[in-house]
Amino acid sequence: MSEMILYDLELSGNCYKVRLFLSLLGQPHQRVAVDFMGGEHKASPLLDKNPFGELPVLEHGEHQFRDSQAILVYLARHYGGDKWLPTTDASEMAEVMQWLMVAENEIARGPGDARLHDLLGYDIDVATARQRAARILNIIEGHLEDRDWLTLGRATIADIACFPYIALGHQGGVGLAAYPAIRAWLGRIAALPGFIDMPGLQGVHGS
Amino acid sequence: MSEMILYDLELSGNCYKVRLFLSLLGQPHQRVAVDFMGGEHKASPLLDKNPFGELPVLEHGEHQFRDSQAILVYLARHYGGDKWLPTTDASEMAEVMQWLMVAENEIARGPGDARLHDLLGYDIDVATARQRAARILNIIEGHLEDRDWLTLGRATIADIACFPYIALGHQGGVGLAAYPAIRAWLGRIAALPGFIDMPGLQGVHGS
Repeated sequence: MSEMILYDLELSGNCYKVRLFLSLLGQPHQRVAVDFMGGEHKASPLLDKNPFGELPVLEHGEHQFRDSQAILVYLARHYGGDKWLPTTDASEMAEVMQWLMVAENEIARGPGDARLHDLLGYDIDVATARQRAARILNIIEGHLEDRDWLTLGRATIADIACFPYIALGHQGGVGLAAYPAIRAWLGRIAALPGFIDMPGLQGVHGS
Repeated sequence: MSEMILYDLELSGNCYKVRLFLSLLGQPHQRVAVDFMGGEHKASPLLDKNPFGELPVLEHGEHQFRDSQAILVYLARHYGGDKWLPTTDASEMAEVMQWLMVAENEIARGPGDARLHDLLGYDIDVATARQRAARILNIIEGHLEDRDWLTLGRATIADIACFPYIALGHQGGVGLAAYPAIRAWLGRIAALPGFIDMPGLQGVHGS
């Protein structure tokens, strides 16, 4: 069996998504901590594995994958059959995809960017990021008012992709006090067998 | 057979992606032009179909889908088998997904945002958008120097998702003079059977 290596950064919510999903799948892997502050990911050999110069990177045998959402798709398809990402039914597949795109776009540019500004000092328009955060949190709160999971009535990679930067939002001034349905959903994710934590998560322990 | 309805905006590159892919698939559908300037998509009944208040929206029988990348996934899986989006091989599937995420993130926030600023007057930091555009175009140019297509050695929805806002970039001050491999790739896309144009496309006719 080919070895699986995750090039990882502890405080990255995108890396955490992959660590968490590997844990939910019970999939053994090697974690390599990357010297992010030293720019190790911006130079060879990591830059050869991912020309975008970003983390996480997942290496599996001869294959290398970038982008946390695409990595979730890879792992779901390779190890999870249709459980975490249906591929037989086109409409079920597209339902999950819609939420992967929300993780890649609205959540990254909302609560994700606000945290990058506050926690890591990125030069980002934090007022705009917080406005975007309020917009997407309001949409998701309304969506979850009569649902336990984002789609398909069960936990899928849609939930895994979307929740980290929502649960980390308070590190960018984006709290969840006004969003009870979101907080309940975070608690459901934390109750999944194999769930693992990361520093700074809010709402996943009933907080 | 259920009717397919595309809620559409002519000058949206995201709507064009869907129109183009439907044409490549030879799939009959009804196009409904939405009064975007009048905010028709921000009110009922369209807002009920898509709570994000955005276009395109694809309606197929009882199903409604938002997000152009997710709609491409739906159509590819429903009508194209594994041709445009492999789902049997996890690594091939993830290869395509990586580029769908580039369309959703780097291309939208680069050349896409620059065009929204210049053409439609959106309040966007256009200098940052153009910097992002240069970064992603440089990465894609390097990637295409020894490839005909973004991945798998053939046309997939990765190419369909990524090319519109690159070919429309000049409407946001992002030209392609410095990117010969990208221009050649645009020409290959334009030569696909069933290709259709949209106003403002550059590079797809050897220009």
